[in-house]
Amino acid sequence: MRTVLPSGMRVVTERLPGVRSAAVGLWVGVGSRDEWPDEEGAAHFLEHLLFKRTPTRTAQSVAVEMDAVGGELNAFTTKEYTCFYAHVLDEDAALAIDVVADVALRGECAAADVDLEREVVLEEIAMREDDPEDLAGDLLVEAVLGGHPLARPVIGSDGSIESMTADRIRGFHRGRYRPESMVLAVAGNITHDEVVRHARAATGADAAASAAPAPVRSGRAAAADSGRLVVHPHDGEQVHLAIGIPTFGRSEGELRWPLAVLNHAVGGGLSSRLFQEIRESRGLAYSVYSSIETYADAGVFSVYAGCRPDNLAAVADQVRRILESIGRDGLGEDECARSRGALRGGMVLGLEDSGARMNRLGAGELARGYHVPLSESLDRIAAVTREDVRAVAAELLRRPRSAVVVGPFEDEAELPAELFAAVGRARPSPRR
Amino acid sequence: MRTVLPSGMRVVTERLPGVRSAAVGLWVGVGSRDEWPDEEGAAHFLEHLLFKRTPTRTAQSVAVEMDAVGGELNAFTTKEYTCFYAHVLDEDAALAIDVVADVALRGECAAADVDLEREVVLEEIAMREDDPEDLAGDLLVEAVLGGHPLARPVIGSDGSIESMTADRIRGFHRGRYRPESMVLAVAGNITHDEVVRHARAATGADAAASAAPAPVRSGRAAAADSGRLVVHPHDGEQVHLAIGIPTFGRSEGELRWPLAVLNHAVGGGLSSRLFQEIRESRGLAYSVYSSIETYADAGVFSVYAGCRPDNLAAVADQVRRILESIGRDGLGEDECARSRGALRGGMVLGLEDSGARMNRLGAGELARGYHVPLSESLDRIAAVTREDVRAVAAELLRRPRSAVVVGPFEDEAELPAELFAAVGRARPSPRR
Repeated sequence: MRTVLPSGMRVVTERLPGVRSAAVGLWVGVGSRDEWPDEEGAAHFLEHLLFKRTPTRTAQSVAVEMDAVGGELNAFTTKEYTCFYAHVLDEDAALAIDVVADVALRGECAAADVDLEREVVLEEIAMREDDPEDLAGDLLVEAVLGGHPLARPVIGSDGSIESMTADRIRGFHRGRYRPESMVLAVAGNITHDEVVRHARAATGADAAASAAPAPVRSGRAAAADSGRLVVHPHDGEQVHLAIGIPTFGRSEGELRWPLAVLNHAVGGGLSSRLFQEIRESRGLAYSVYSSIETYADAGVFSVYAGCRPDNLAAVADQVRRILESIGRDGLGEDECARSRGALRGGMVLGLEDSGARMNRLGAGELARGYHVPLSESLDRIAAVTREDVRAVAAELLRRPRSAVVVGPFEDEAELPAELFAAVGRARPSPRR
Repeated sequence: MRTVLPSGMRVVTERLPGVRSAAVGLWVGVGSRDEWPDEEGAAHFLEHLLFKRTPTRTAQSVAVEMDAVGGELNAFTTKEYTCFYAHVLDEDAALAIDVVADVALRGECAAADVDLEREVVLEEIAMREDDPEDLAGDLLVEAVLGGHPLARPVIGSDGSIESMTADRIRGFHRGRYRPESMVLAVAGNITHDEVVRHARAATGADAAASAAPAPVRSGRAAAADSGRLVVHPHDGEQVHLAIGIPTFGRSEGELRWPLAVLNHAVGGGLSSRLFQEIRESRGLAYSVYSSIETYADAGVFSVYAGCRPDNLAAVADQVRRILESIGRDGLGEDECARSRGALRGGMVLGLEDSGARMNRLGAGELARGYHVPLSESLDRIAAVTREDVRAVAAELLRRPRSAVVVGPFEDEAELPAELFAAVGRARPSPRR
């Protein structure tokens, strides 16, 4: 169910009478893509800071309150939104709603807290630098989306975080965190009316001037006309390869489900082509898969594999063969049917816990402004034809491919020819 | 509910009528601690291999069967057991039971499959080597438990995997994978009688000679009399510090709950001392926590922190202060009550999904031979007193401490004095 409070904040709920808990999320339609170039990392830094202090709470008192009831409290920032969430016993839902609303609406950005939390964010950047699989994924989105604001890393850089001021972050908070851009999503053993009542109390919504929800993001980014090849030197036992292609934004939503079916068949599960060819038949990698990121106006399809450097040429060669084969012939009839079945089953199984339900409610409301019932999504998947998938695959294979290599290589001259072939480029002449 | 099949295999179930799924696990009471020193990694290698081929299935046909119904299928190996599991819609439970039983009981170890899967396991070892946080945890258990079979890494080493033969693995399978050591655990929307019927069909249990379940592991390992300090050089932005103390095995089960309360207060949540002192008050680390590993006859309490090398001295100093303070004074009354509340709430919230329920059923049956109802565990936590915790904390602080440092250091001469102090040792004289 859905209610718009007078402040413009939306409240969306799903009752799950089978559980004893409630998952509560305060979603803000603000992410790293909303930063100006000179405030890179501000959205994520702000998410950290808001927990530090509100007019009635400190970081420690929030931690004590939630811990005393066994609740879990956390937050995350993406390129398009920020979510403050809690998972608590149903009887503690009012407390959870009060905490996430207090933090998001009334969190302060004291200068001393900014300096302290700056160190924590710098540690987080150092940690990301030491996680080559994650890093390859982030760098791939940067490579595929080029100069678009979506290309920037959510976390910022050492330089942008070191120079961030309290004023700058406060300005970002005041300007961006408007009730009209917020969604309170709750899934669990609690009624919609109870949630609305707690939300009114927690947000002071009734005192606010009347406002309507902010419109959803829209638009369609211009597609990049060439791919990039990025080598990020990293000492380690494995090389981490990510290959990506620009796909579609939510405004091209009709292509979403064929793309999902395609992705599943390429690298979404144990029977996928990547897993069967690269791991099961050839033992070239332990971890290999494909995935899709979708934003309002752009998207990325990507393939990841981690392997020892000696296997890189063979892995790149298999990835190229699989992509080219699918671009040419699409999927087999059985393969297409199996991928539809796997997506539908996985969607039902994945929505069993209250946290996943809450995420679907909150992210969906921000992305589309309305709720898509599970049954409708299942019907859409069932309706995907082999021809739909073939058309999407052919379109993708016409687009430029990018690649990122994180591993023991200094520059692209050291990479095997198979990797250049996988992104449709000729290998430059060897160095003299 | 619990039934022993004629083969000695146990079937344990929990009905969850609120869900539409079933989580199915075939648990085998065999792990890396059961390997001879010259077959290190055999239990985990075998777990990989069994998926490759049975008399009626191949790796690909299993993947296709599960994918077609949207099911998830996987397995993991620990030091004490191996689990083959699936998560499926309730209507597909019979298929899931058939697959996990077929794989565990009738999986083959063809020589060609061994050679192919050897490469995958070597990739997995390379991947672990590139995950410094996981690596620090594994090395810490090795350091704390010294020469005990539990100390060896589950995954084996490059050398042990390269020299592993098909005969050796087949021998391990035949000798160790007995129905008496197996537990089929199912949680979901399915009755006990249905599960037993599917289990009889899938295992051929009725044709087997009559057998009783294997006894649970018991004993009590001799405590180490000194700690170790291990430096594992690793290029990266962060240093990963793990500090550990030998604790108690399941045979000293009465100490389990005071230790759990202690662990929560030290580093189990947002209000814990480690999080508040090291991250919130000083910004010295992004990730910092403590945890407990419990085996039949031994256990390890450990503290982890990841930080930039410049912060290592300050982090080690805070860890020492926190451990010494708790060893001397135990917990405050509020702190103890809050930790009990957090553990109880977290346990209820953590058991909402069918997979977690299934894990608790299967691992519990192997570890203890009987089921502990959730209400009993909650009562045991509620009964922990401040004095119980103080006694456990004092005992721990009398035991030798070990530390592992994974990061940009070549040897212990480069480590700060604060780290030596944290494990109760004097720093050796600096190199000349």
